[in-house]
Amino acid sequence: MTDSVFYAELPWPDVEARIAAGAPVFLPLGATEQHGRHMALNVDVVIPTAIAARAAAELGGLVLPTVAYGNRSQPKTGGGPGFPGTLNLSAHTFSLIVRDVICELFRQNVRKIVTVNGHYENIGPTIEGIELALDAIGRDRAADLVILRVDHWDMVRPETLDRIFPNGYPGIELEHASVLETSMMMALRPELVDLSKARHDGPAAFLPYDRFPKPCAEVPPSGVLSLTEGSSAENGELLLADCVAGITAAAAREFN
Amino acid sequence: MTDSVFYAELPWPDVEARIAAGAPVFLPLGATEQHGRHMALNVDVVIPTAIAARAAAELGGLVLPTVAYGNRSQPKTGGGPGFPGTLNLSAHTFSLIVRDVICELFRQNVRKIVTVNGHYENIGPTIEGIELALDAIGRDRAADLVILRVDHWDMVRPETLDRIFPNGYPGIELEHASVLETSMMMALRPELVDLSKARHDGPAAFLPYDRFPKPCAEVPPSGVLSLTEGSSAENGELLLADCVAGITAAAAREFN
Amino acid sequence: MTDSVFYAELPWPDVEARIAAGAPVFLPLGATEQHGRHMALNVDVVIPTAIAARAAAELGGLVLPTVAYGNRSQPKTGGGPGFPGTLNLSAHTFSLIVRDVICELFRQNVRKIVTVNGHYENIGPTIEGIELALDAIGRDRAADLVILRVDHWDMVRPETLDRIFPNGYPGIELEHASVLETSMMMALRPELVDLSKARHDGPAAFLPYDRFPKPCAEVPPSGVLSLTEGSSAENGELLLADCVAGITAAAAREFN
Amino acid sequence: MTDSVFYAELPWPDVEARIAAGAPVFLPLGATEQHGRHMALNVDVVIPTAIAARAAAELGGLVLPTVAYGNRSQPKTGGGPGFPGTLNLSAHTFSLIVRDVICELFRQNVRKIVTVNGHYENIGPTIEGIELALDAIGRDRAADLVILRVDHWDMVRPETLDRIFPNGYPGIELEHASVLETSMMMALRPELVDLSKARHDGPAAFLPYDRFPKPCAEVPPSGVLSLTEGSSAENGELLLADCVAGITAAAAREFN
Amino acid sequence: MTDSVFYAELPWPDVEARIAAGAPVFLPLGATEQHGRHMALNVDVVIPTAIAARAAAELGGLVLPTVAYGNRSQPKTGGGPGFPGTLNLSAHTFSLIVRDVICELFRQNVRKIVTVNGHYENIGPTIEGIELALDAIGRDRAADLVILRVDHWDMVRPETLDRIFPNGYPGIELEHASVLETSMMMALRPELVDLSKARHDGPAAFLPYDRFPKPCAEVPPSGVLSLTEGSSAENGELLLADCVAGITAAAAREFN
Amino acid sequence: MTDSVFYAELPWPDVEARIAAGAPVFLPLGATEQHGRHMALNVDVVIPTAIAARAAAELGGLVLPTVAYGNRSQPKTGGGPGFPGTLNLSAHTFSLIVRDVICELFRQNVRKIVTVNGHYENIGPTIEGIELALDAIGRDRAADLVILRVDHWDMVRPETLDRIFPNGYPGIELEHASVLETSMMMALRPELVDLSKARHDGPAAFLPYDRFPKPCAEVPPSGVLSLTEGSSAENGELLLADCVAGITAAAAREFN
Repeated sequence: MTDSVFYAELPWPDVEARIAAGAPVFLPLGATEQHGRHMALNVDVVIPTAIAARAAAELGGLVLPTVAYGNRSQPKTGGGPGFPGTLNLSAHTFSLIVRDVICELFRQNVRKIVTVNGHYENIGPTIEGIELALDAIGRDRAADLVILRVDHWDMVRPETLDRIFPNGYPGIELEHASVLETSMMMALRPELVDLSKARHDGPAAFLPYDRFPKPCAEVPPSGVLSLTEGSSAENGELLLADCVAGITAAAAREFN
Repeated sequence: MTDSVFYAELPWPDVEARIAAGAPVFLPLGATEQHGRHMALNVDVVIPTAIAARAAAELGGLVLPTVAYGNRSQPKTGGGPGFPGTLNLSAHTFSLIVRDVICELFRQNVRKIVTVNGHYENIGPTIEGIELALDAIGRDRAADLVILRVDHWDMVRPETLDRIFPNGYPGIELEHASVLETSMMMALRPELVDLSKARHDGPAAFLPYDRFPKPCAEVPPSGVLSLTEGSSAENGELLLADCVAGITAAAAREFN
Repeated sequence: MTDSVFYAELPWPDVEARIAAGAPVFLPLGATEQHGRHMALNVDVVIPTAIAARAAAELGGLVLPTVAYGNRSQPKTGGGPGFPGTLNLSAHTFSLIVRDVICELFRQNVRKIVTVNGHYENIGPTIEGIELALDAIGRDRAADLVILRVDHWDMVRPETLDRIFPNGYPGIELEHASVLETSMMMALRPELVDLSKARHDGPAAFLPYDRFPKPCAEVPPSGVLSLTEGSSAENGELLLADCVAGITAAAAREFN
Repeated sequence: MTDSVFYAELPWPDVEARIAAGAPVFLPLGATEQHGRHMALNVDVVIPTAIAARAAAELGGLVLPTVAYGNRSQPKTGGGPGFPGTLNLSAHTFSLIVRDVICELFRQNVRKIVTVNGHYENIGPTIEGIELALDAIGRDRAADLVILRVDHWDMVRPETLDRIFPNGYPGIELEHASVLETSMMMALRPELVDLSKARHDGPAAFLPYDRFPKPCAEVPPSGVLSLTEGSSAENGELLLADCVAGITAAAAREFN
Repeated sequence: MTDSVFYAELPWPDVEARIAAGAPVFLPLGATEQHGRHMALNVDVVIPTAIAARAAAELGGLVLPTVAYGNRSQPKTGGGPGFPGTLNLSAHTFSLIVRDVICELFRQNVRKIVTVNGHYENIGPTIEGIELALDAIGRDRAADLVILRVDHWDMVRPETLDRIFPNGYPGIELEHASVLETSMMMALRPELVDLSKARHDGPAAFLPYDRFPKPCAEVPPSGVLSLTEGSSAENGELLLADCVAGITAAAAREFN
Repeated sequence: MTDSVFYAELPWPDVEARIAAGAPVFLPLGATEQHGRHMALNVDVVIPTAIAARAAAELGGLVLPTVAYGNRSQPKTGGGPGFPGTLNLSAHTFSLIVRDVICELFRQNVRKIVTVNGHYENIGPTIEGIELALDAIGRDRAADLVILRVDHWDMVRPETLDRIFPNGYPGIELEHASVLETSMMMALRPELVDLSKARHDGPAAFLPYDRFPKPCAEVPPSGVLSLTEGSSAENGELLLADCVAGITAAAAREFN
């Protein structure tokens, strides 16, 4: 049978043994969300899953099935809840998934958990889900539990950004479907990227507030918030390497 | 770019076009649950995903990301919530996922939905989720929406069962991790099956009630409720073919 | 004052004393649901209440007020949520009732609980409610609590089915409002049964999937899924006796 | 078959016909709560059920199964959540029951609903449940729906109180398990009353605030908040007659 | 920096020190609700906040930010949910606020809490919120926690009512926006009262039941349930003094 | 009576008239959260309330009572949930408050709503609450509703930041309890600021991930994430002016 880093590709005795041996468990958190005309909807699934798999391979860890539906996409960070193709969970639903999975891991005696997030809007509901899980477990009982919450973009080193953006990093705010994500997808799933379809209708210039129910109209029609120029699989590998290194360092610091 | 049946492997303009053309959308519903010593934990994910993909290919449909976490495993149908490796969602959480995804599909103008379920315990919470979605959408507004809820084992024809079980079908009740699931996994992901690890500790003989919090002890230690003898990839293909044919027929009858 | 098996027919000092003496407490779980033209809507209330009362009389137990509203009736097991007369609770509501009542019993120092269910669709939400109660109580604190979850039809012995169905048992799937339930109602509340009104429009032949929001049309118009021929009070007593014997045996095995 | 005012004692065609003919539907709301040493725990179930049945008989109405579990008993109105025997639902659970049942009645085309309440603490959660139901139904669609919410004690005429309490009515605040409830129980279910067990440890003198988690100690040990002197079946009939007359008058005024 | 009784007007080290010194913490619970043509909508906020501040000054306590949105106003106690200007929270939302705040206070090591309520309809959801908090904290862990729940009108002494109502107290039922509240507002925020705008359209004569969705029409058009004659700042000070004295006495009795 | 911009300081006829005249309604969203040793806990309440009041004065609008309890404070943006003094609501509770208030405003015929937020962690739950409100109202019925969601810090012009930070703006990430908030508090409530108590223990250097349940230790002990040097009431007025101008411009653009 396969010797996999993926929790669900193992039979239960192997998972039980790996947990007993102290394997950290990774929970990738994604979304099904538009990522421009040049990329598939699964960018926020592919990237954190791959990062988690590489980090797990380094650390002897296991990767859970990725949560493939994310919290409500917002116009300024992903095109917005009404963009064609995007499927949104409510924050409450997303939080309950995170809560349930973490409670289950705790019950399975997992004490080292890393959530690897690929979708900006998941940050808040992930925190809520973790806190709800800690309430449900009982804070007194959770003294030996360590949960690390990682957003992959925060793991990228400044040196790497300097190298990828020789003219200056435009900032994470507009990176949706742009150079960072495109590059990592080119490294990981090149068949899901077609740069010839990238439109040059960005970068977005947002008004300094949100409007509901009809969002403000400034999202570039392609759904790319910034630009894709400079994307390459090579850059993607640099970014992925930073993420894996960052998680490995965090695990060394926090799990002992 | 890839021409995929998988919704999330397409860029948004392709999804939008496919929906506009009337593509039915498939939502596979799975679980991460023990399936004996001889199979990986992802059996309930792999099988409905594959069936949905084959049916979608027949019907010009699209397959959503599979919900990989299922409702609480029960001893008599899956080993139970406390079996090593099994990760359970509460029924409420699972129902909210189904509700949210169906509401989102409706908002995206999808009017033909097929849920393909691979985990017995998901049945009730899927129904609850669908009803909650219909409440949220508004029954008046949902007049042109058709949702088909499929459990793959109900799609198998008696002739096929006769062929697979020449000595008589023991019944679906004990089929967890047994011949049907093992055969389909051998057809789909043979690297995740190792029949040499199958234990002959079944079939289970259950008491006619459930006990909580400590379940009754009759689950065979392997987690296989019946037996695996007679499993083969060939049988798996027969079963998968029935499922795809059954769904195709249902779609022909219900979507027009 | 009355010396009753019914918890709510006693004054509080008697209940307190009975619990202190170790009385098991029975929670009957029913529904208000169509049961054909020949029976009242309270079949799923009458039967589990009577079984619980007889078992409680055997075991020195107490019977709580029956939950008279059940989880959403489904076409294949009860006619469906839209059948005239049927009143459905959502699964979430039903689960919360079960959770609250079990938490309260625990707080009242009850440690032996038997749920006696008469409505198929209640199974899942009862399990959910029990698990939610165990979470709320705290699994550590619930070590001496035993909850048995009984569906009355599972308590019927094969010998009894052979006797009632000399031509072979059609299976529990189609038993809604059919011979089993009709016979027990004839034994318990004959004034609520009028066999002359039974229609011969069954047995139902269901398609192998569910459809929403408009269910598939195969429910026989009477609401009887199978047939009523062979129903009798005598058969009803046989069935009830099996249920009581089964519960008594379970209590002997599990409560000590 | 029986010709009953009880909804659940009828087969579905009769219920359907009665609703089509405009029958008002009564939902009795009760509790399982201590009512002194001299009465059973089901006082709050028996009384509103009987009132609803008598009113329904007058008005050609139907009586639903009584909700037998009430919202958290409070010390000043029922002895409190921790009194032996008392079983409490959370307000949220109780509200969801009311919401679900009213939504279901609306779906069954019922447009005249009367809730008849026997438990003080149910007032708020009943209002919440009704409002939630109206939200779920949609206020626009509910234009022809009329729900009357009745607490039976408010239906008693001053003349009746004067007659029952020649020395002056002590006020509804302390009437828990006292003359009003005892008298109605003596009229309705005399076998569930044993006045010889009534203790003279009241009336309660409460502090002007509530304390949690340990309630203030002023509840008389018997659980009777006032006194039982003057209770009689005759007085009970006077009270019941007022309630029925009051509901009948309300129906005449509001349902047309 | 200010030396304030208001928790939120202090920097965190001062709050920490005050809690460590055993300061009781007051949580005022209000509403934004019509109070007649002669008073602002914030009556139920101003009064409990002021009472809490005066009591805290006596007791060395701290006053939390007032919850300014209350549970659904009802016609007989506040004009009703649809009265212009009134903003209602659902009971569930209100309860969750109370739950969360009490859990947070417990986590901050506060063990003496007083809720001071100014809005009748908040009573039930406050109790629910407190009970939910105790469940969340764990009753075992909350042994040293004392929560007092005060409705300000219950703190008024009969002598004071006799003095304010020389012709007899009409009862708290109709006091909404009437003499008690008007007097206290005249004492506290005279600029928010304009007695010249008080209409003489009360007192209300209510039918003995509630109607939904369209409430019965008996609320006086002004929104004042009784009358305002006899209101004065002097009377307001008498009432406020009673409330403060009552709370101070309760604290002396319960916090030690 | 007062002529106030504060909704709750008006009697209901004035509110009704102002809404009928098209007044936009402002909902300030705050928190009770540590803001360093030099400022009170109410910074996130004072600032958005003042901005809303000034903007309402410009626009003929009304300001609702500020929600004074915010979503869970996080270490990197506010010190974290466990910092002394900080009181956190769960995201779900906060969202329900926003949902309920917006639904109520819609019911009161308000069609122009501005939420003015002062607490970073409220962003997500505010969006969730708005979306839940739109679901509850019905998107079809909400066609003429416009909700603007404003975070005050996004309204500050780059020119103003240049002027306040002549050596370069350190970025909003670390601005908690730092120059921006301190300056605005000095302008608005100078008695709640004591710069002599500001500690120079920042700026914070955060690890690029979050840890639970015990957060990473990098929050400066004072709770000030950056520094306070350069704070002044004059700078505060510049910032407030930008916010008011930004909201006024947004209203001119969006409300017509």
